[in-house]
Amino acid sequence: MTPIPIPTPASPPPDVVRCAYLELVVTDLERARHFYVEVLGLVVTAEEDDAVYLRSLEEFIHHNLVLRRGPVAAAAAFSYRVRSPEELDKAEAFYSELGCRVERRPEGFVRGVGDSVRVEDPLGFPYEFFYDVTHVERLAWRYDLYTPGALVRLDHFNQVTPDVPRAVQYMSDLGFRTTEDIQDEKGTVYAAWMRRKPTVHDTAMTGGDGPRLHHIAFNTHEKHNVIAICDKLGALRLSDCIERGPGRHGVSNAFYLYLRDPDGHRVEIYTQDYYTGDPDNPVVTWDVHDNQRRDWWGNPVVPSWYNEASLVLDLDGNPQPVVSRTEERELDVTVGADGFTYTRKGQDDLPSWKQGEYKLGEQL
Amino acid sequence: MTPIPIPTPASPPPDVVRCAYLELVVTDLERARHFYVEVLGLVVTAEEDDAVYLRSLEEFIHHNLVLRRGPVAAAAAFSYRVRSPEELDKAEAFYSELGCRVERRPEGFVRGVGDSVRVEDPLGFPYEFFYDVTHVERLAWRYDLYTPGALVRLDHFNQVTPDVPRAVQYMSDLGFRTTEDIQDEKGTVYAAWMRRKPTVHDTAMTGGDGPRLHHIAFNTHEKHNVIAICDKLGALRLSDCIERGPGRHGVSNAFYLYLRDPDGHRVEIYTQDYYTGDPDNPVVTWDVHDNQRRDWWGNPVVPSWYNEASLVLDLDGNPQPVVSRTEERELDVTVGADGFTYTRKGQDDLPSWKQGEYKLGEQL
Amino acid sequence: MTPIPIPTPASPPPDVVRCAYLELVVTDLERARHFYVEVLGLVVTAEEDDAVYLRSLEEFIHHNLVLRRGPVAAAAAFSYRVRSPEELDKAEAFYSELGCRVERRPEGFVRGVGDSVRVEDPLGFPYEFFYDVTHVERLAWRYDLYTPGALVRLDHFNQVTPDVPRAVQYMSDLGFRTTEDIQDEKGTVYAAWMRRKPTVHDTAMTGGDGPRLHHIAFNTHEKHNVIAICDKLGALRLSDCIERGPGRHGVSNAFYLYLRDPDGHRVEIYTQDYYTGDPDNPVVTWDVHDNQRRDWWGNPVVPSWYNEASLVLDLDGNPQPVVSRTEERELDVTVGADGFTYTRKGQDDLPSWKQGEYKLGEQL
Amino acid sequence: MTPIPIPTPASPPPDVVRCAYLELVVTDLERARHFYVEVLGLVVTAEEDDAVYLRSLEEFIHHNLVLRRGPVAAAAAFSYRVRSPEELDKAEAFYSELGCRVERRPEGFVRGVGDSVRVEDPLGFPYEFFYDVTHVERLAWRYDLYTPGALVRLDHFNQVTPDVPRAVQYMSDLGFRTTEDIQDEKGTVYAAWMRRKPTVHDTAMTGGDGPRLHHIAFNTHEKHNVIAICDKLGALRLSDCIERGPGRHGVSNAFYLYLRDPDGHRVEIYTQDYYTGDPDNPVVTWDVHDNQRRDWWGNPVVPSWYNEASLVLDLDGNPQPVVSRTEERELDVTVGADGFTYTRKGQDDLPSWKQGEYKLGEQL
Repeated sequence: MTPIPIPTPASPPPDVVRCAYLELVVTDLERARHFYVEVLGLVVTAEEDDAVYLRSLEEFIHHNLVLRRGPVAAAAAFSYRVRSPEELDKAEAFYSELGCRVERRPEGFVRGVGDSVRVEDPLGFPYEFFYDVTHVERLAWRYDLYTPGALVRLDHFNQVTPDVPRAVQYMSDLGFRTTEDIQDEKGTVYAAWMRRKPTVHDTAMTGGDGPRLHHIAFNTHEKHNVIAICDKLGALRLSDCIERGPGRHGVSNAFYLYLRDPDGHRVEIYTQDYYTGDPDNPVVTWDVHDNQRRDWWGNPVVPSWYNEASLVLDLDGNPQPVVSRTEERELDVTVGADGFTYTRKGQDDLPSWKQGEYKLGEQL
Repeated sequence: MTPIPIPTPASPPPDVVRCAYLELVVTDLERARHFYVEVLGLVVTAEEDDAVYLRSLEEFIHHNLVLRRGPVAAAAAFSYRVRSPEELDKAEAFYSELGCRVERRPEGFVRGVGDSVRVEDPLGFPYEFFYDVTHVERLAWRYDLYTPGALVRLDHFNQVTPDVPRAVQYMSDLGFRTTEDIQDEKGTVYAAWMRRKPTVHDTAMTGGDGPRLHHIAFNTHEKHNVIAICDKLGALRLSDCIERGPGRHGVSNAFYLYLRDPDGHRVEIYTQDYYTGDPDNPVVTWDVHDNQRRDWWGNPVVPSWYNEASLVLDLDGNPQPVVSRTEERELDVTVGADGFTYTRKGQDDLPSWKQGEYKLGEQL
Repeated sequence: MTPIPIPTPASPPPDVVRCAYLELVVTDLERARHFYVEVLGLVVTAEEDDAVYLRSLEEFIHHNLVLRRGPVAAAAAFSYRVRSPEELDKAEAFYSELGCRVERRPEGFVRGVGDSVRVEDPLGFPYEFFYDVTHVERLAWRYDLYTPGALVRLDHFNQVTPDVPRAVQYMSDLGFRTTEDIQDEKGTVYAAWMRRKPTVHDTAMTGGDGPRLHHIAFNTHEKHNVIAICDKLGALRLSDCIERGPGRHGVSNAFYLYLRDPDGHRVEIYTQDYYTGDPDNPVVTWDVHDNQRRDWWGNPVVPSWYNEASLVLDLDGNPQPVVSRTEERELDVTVGADGFTYTRKGQDDLPSWKQGEYKLGEQL
Repeated sequence: MTPIPIPTPASPPPDVVRCAYLELVVTDLERARHFYVEVLGLVVTAEEDDAVYLRSLEEFIHHNLVLRRGPVAAAAAFSYRVRSPEELDKAEAFYSELGCRVERRPEGFVRGVGDSVRVEDPLGFPYEFFYDVTHVERLAWRYDLYTPGALVRLDHFNQVTPDVPRAVQYMSDLGFRTTEDIQDEKGTVYAAWMRRKPTVHDTAMTGGDGPRLHHIAFNTHEKHNVIAICDKLGALRLSDCIERGPGRHGVSNAFYLYLRDPDGHRVEIYTQDYYTGDPDNPVVTWDVHDNQRRDWWGNPVVPSWYNEASLVLDLDGNPQPVVSRTEERELDVTVGADGFTYTRKGQDDLPSWKQGEYKLGEQL
């Protein structure tokens, strides 16, 4: 089946500044609040009976994460800030031309945010655009509030979608640039990283059954902050929240950790990728068989990281149906029965202590 | 079979100050030298056609590691420094009374070390004791020589032996104190950590087929130094040297990384355990089923880490025969078919992303 | 004397992406090369008899610093990258309209850079704009090349100019935004930080006798990298290169260190300021009397840091004359005879160990 | 005046394990508690109306610091742990033979500690020895309790005494070994570092008017923890607690920070000195004129650090009279009118930015 490309609208896209916040539906708000506030140390800007508004320490807009109580764990909105109020008109026109469902609310969809446009985008994701937002205290200098694992910024989203090149083309039309991707020798694209702000990404498109949320990522300042989160989870006997890592990514060169919240939503802790703001910033393409692409140290990616992700909601709050990926899957071509991988291209003499790892996929 | 305990000698043991160096036989001296000097940054004190003498940056004695070319990869000596020259007489008497083979060489067995006693100890390990040693420059202040992953001290050895309580009793007679151990509810001991200097260990006794060398461990100052070693291995496309970690130990509370050198000898990079020098220092006993005992973050221990280890040599340079452990094995009782493990005692509701990991042992 | 404001040109400014490189004249090229390459670890992209081209580890353009042998230590060019080749025409028009001397060279002024515009700007600084540049390997993943104090990016310039508000208006016309500044209760502005890329600054305007170069700043990833540079300077017995720090800035919230190169040019090592890319990013104004504005820990700023700076050259390579600041000087109003400063506003009960420090200025 | 040496007792000294705790009299217990608990994060083991008992995170004995309300800020006891209960008899005999006032209390002098000997030692310091102590939870694994600047161990005391060689001889008789010292070319000793546990010191003898307490020092794990304390003090507008640093010591090679508590008692935060446990550990002697001896980066030592210190109490709780040092003072021979200092021996061409610093002493 040849997927139908998403047409490029004649309308110019809105000028997106950065990923700004995620609205997340959680089934047990108290447990979720404990995880994000007591364990991870996000700051509560506001809370209501059914929602908690959280921000990172260097943020000056109202929130980077909204936790909302709901019946099904899912992502309700991927929200981006645009450069001016006028950009919302462009967002409306851009998505209307694409035939998407578009809803605009001058009073905003969530507390702290004003005039906003929400859409069900061509990939099925609930995207939001806004400019107007309540300013709050930037706590960057409030070191009396810092914890050892302090989360200082929202870094990016990561979305699961069946057809990565199709998604990349649409996102490019929306004004995003690719910084890195993973391909194989036949040109199959397994994932792509795309940015507006000059970091490696504001969002990534990960090939798989979708639309689903793969994860949301927050920054720490240093690597020891990431380790401190692991140590604290151990002390709280919550180490089973740790799904993968910590480690060094090949893609992005960042130091990472993946956690799962009480609903299974995945959260990445991320630090020290690189500047990508030049117009001719070199795109880095990784070979899917390179065992250092996902973890620079060659540590295995656990299968759940490839397979599990969160549902996303339509604008009525109902889960979007999940469409299967038809192309080859990264898990299969690397660790599965037919997969192969290498540390040094052309060499396949695995040491004894690595022989099990590359075959994990088929057995689990 | 009830193992025969090792009798306590009437002779007092030598007063051991600390673990001082390991003599390691490598089959390809150039590759081994590259690994320890170019990759890990140990400092060359001296070298000969068939041997390289290496030390860490804060060391003032001649070496912490001797690499010697030989036909079979093995550990030739676990060497301890004693408090005075007179302690060598005690070592001779102590091991003679135990019926061990004892050899004393006033000129020493290796370059840089004088009067020494080597023995084939009751567990089959080649132990050495010495006081007289050449002093060399302590490079602690030579920050111009530091690398991002600088190794600053030798921390400990780790030995594999079939019967841990038997080994612990003998080592206690030798004057070592237990700081931590791993047991099960029936009292089976899976491993024990023992010290002379006031850290968690100068050596550990790990239950398994032995006598074998499990690993040698060097200290870094900080955790980022350990990460820098991983990053460098990735850059050199040597990430398959990384066997396990980095991570936080439960036992010892140290931050760790396990590497395998070109001969498969295991090297730990280790930092930030705690002071144990008080006579009533509390012993910490870990439940073998506690999933955080070996990795505080609950990350799985790879099977090779349990199963593989280096041969040790007798005083003629021949490999010691390896005797199988007859008691239950830690790998089996935790990750194997009959094993079980927990993050929170009494709870066994594993999240989806952890379900594979606990069963790795039987499948690999 | 009322300074004459710089008029806002009708021509649009060039779209500047970021500060890109500094051309620095040094009187002893070998000593300067040793300092920047052997001590600080910048990477040599190219070298000639009279010039060395250096870059940081995450850079992909040809260089971030050119060291050129010359008779007088000075800054020859502050060079910015623009978004496209067409922006050079805008630069020409913008500065021509301002009556500045403008020189355009299609072949570029330095190796590795193509079509460029250099100007003597209204403040007397030699500014350069370019788009065309040779790409080189981004060494971000080359951890085998990292040193403990690895410099990973060029962060910013800092310029000394007599009249800060006048400079700020001109730079705003050039498209820069103010992120932070230092003022007193009368509205005198002592310094301002201005950015194009979304960090605290691409350049800062520091009030003083000018035009002069105050410093160039490079980023490290973490704070320990900054400390490693100090430690290495100590080991090399070059600690007298350390002028100020390390410390935490109040302004910018970054961790810093100021060095002086063999010619006395000042180099800052800088890490961990914050994201400023939103159009309504809050401007932070610091009280000049707040003792934590320049050093968050209240450590004194050495007088040389206020008083000393490097000459800048005109487009013929001759030093620009230095014009004195006529407004009050920050050194005088804080640490001098008539100055005052506070840790907690309204409290002036200095502890005994601080009483000397605040009066340093008048005595040195 | 030739000082009278302290005779070496015929009685053997007690076998001291390590420095264990300091009893500190504070004039405002609430402010002191806030400083040590809320700001520095020491853990409260117990508290009473007039005293608070604090420990570091890796400690398992009852406390490392006792804050006791009293009329005069002073140190009431420097307390050392001995290897067994029997060592207390040796302490009694040792000090009785020296003619010191000795008091033994089987019930102990403070909560949590049993049978103890307190003496007014030959230098006028209130020294305590004990073995019996209440064990408490070692919080090493309780990462949920860690702050960014977590203090994990008591490291050492530092005492001011007029005649350093006299003090060193007495402390050597007590079984301490010198690890480093500062001398001049005439053999005048300005300070000496002495240890029982194998670190650089359990206490240091600093030449000056005494007996006085120079400081108590706690360990952090890493350098960023020290920086975090500074950052927090800035956030709390308590930066004037920072007296000196952070920096790297030449002596000890440790990373350091000196704070002053609300009573002016000096607290050092200290990390990463080196192992000194070998009997022939090389003693490092520093030249008093070496500008890197006290700060490896050549940053100036503030005069208050040399001049100010805390009174100590006799066994009745009255301040000991302070005797002046008659030998040359380190402050005078380095930064004062007649002092000189160097970064590179034999070179005295100070850069402009350093010329003020070396002369600070006489002017302040």
